[in-house]
Amino acid sequence: MANVFPPSLKSLVGALQALPGVGPKSAQRAAFHLLERDREGLARLADALTAADQKLEHCKHCRMFCEGDECRLCTDPNRDGRALVVVETPADVAAMESATDYRGRYFVLGGRLSPLDGIGPDELGAGQLESRLAGGVEEVIVATGATVEGEATAHWIAECAARHGVPVTRIAYGVPVGGELEYVDGSTLARAFSGRRAVEE
Amino acid sequence: MANVFPPSLKSLVGALQALPGVGPKSAQRAAFHLLERDREGLARLADALTAADQKLEHCKHCRMFCEGDECRLCTDPNRDGRALVVVETPADVAAMESATDYRGRYFVLGGRLSPLDGIGPDELGAGQLESRLAGGVEEVIVATGATVEGEATAHWIAECAARHGVPVTRIAYGVPVGGELEYVDGSTLARAFSGRRAVEE
Repeated sequence: MANVFPPSLKSLVGALQALPGVGPKSAQRAAFHLLERDREGLARLADALTAADQKLEHCKHCRMFCEGDECRLCTDPNRDGRALVVVETPADVAAMESATDYRGRYFVLGGRLSPLDGIGPDELGAGQLESRLAGGVEEVIVATGATVEGEATAHWIAECAARHGVPVTRIAYGVPVGGELEYVDGSTLARAFSGRRAVEE
Repeated sequence: MANVFPPSLKSLVGALQALPGVGPKSAQRAAFHLLERDREGLARLADALTAADQKLEHCKHCRMFCEGDECRLCTDPNRDGRALVVVETPADVAAMESATDYRGRYFVLGGRLSPLDGIGPDELGAGQLESRLAGGVEEVIVATGATVEGEATAHWIAECAARHGVPVTRIAYGVPVGGELEYVDGSTLARAFSGRRAVEE
């Protein structure tokens, strides 16, 4: 980067590249935008990052982000501790909560099995999942993504649950609502076909 | 956003939307990325933002970003104070410095004339530019963008310089180096044609 920038501007442009998908050019653009047009937003972002860094931990039960060591979902007495939805990311918890009427608890893996990237069961909180399964869970609902790694992760969770004698279900994968067969991709259609179910009368 | 996120995570996702082109979804993605995969980058970004907010001011002479009230380019005794390049943004200074061998000084407008957006001469540092023109400048080189607002801004600068009896030139706009006439857009070609110059022998 140009020598004409003062050190603190250079560090800011460098630090902004920690954001996903942000390279030198867009980091520079973001830095100038904040400095010239949104000083208030800049200060607010600095404070929010500092606060998040200091406060946010993973819940010791479900690995969701929380302030303190237990999250609201795990301590809420109105939620059913017998059902456990296992998802990949905290964002998936948010998606489930806003789209469904599920009132049980969650377990956030924080990724999916991917041996090539060095992500094995330990990285996904295998120990915490086991102790969760041993603690009164009566149904595990696997809600990992419909990708190759998501499948592998689902199999691994099913094995863990089987060891504890807990029944496992998996959310349905198939033609999305509003989808027309003609425009659905082949893999999805094949999956929907192989996952066909008896029509309830 | 989902209720399931703790307050400091919600504030972080909100604050990240101050960045240009970042909406709720990409802010959430960026927050998770920093929190889960790059805590060090998160802390570094927080520090860099705080430092930039505290240290960076505009140079009192040229309006470039600097720490303190005068920038390196304005205080460097090896630079020629008789030439003044006027650009729109600090990034343009960096571009000029890395591409040309110009060794004079700069003036950063911090935008371009755009009456509809409430950006007039005062917002572009008219007062500072006038005092700069009164202070021994012998050539003003206008390097604003080749846009409608850039043109209007160039005219305004030329007027200012004329009032101080300072000659004005403008960088050349035309077919870019490596450009083939067939693929250059019509406006650029028209501009290149009308801006034709005598061939030096």
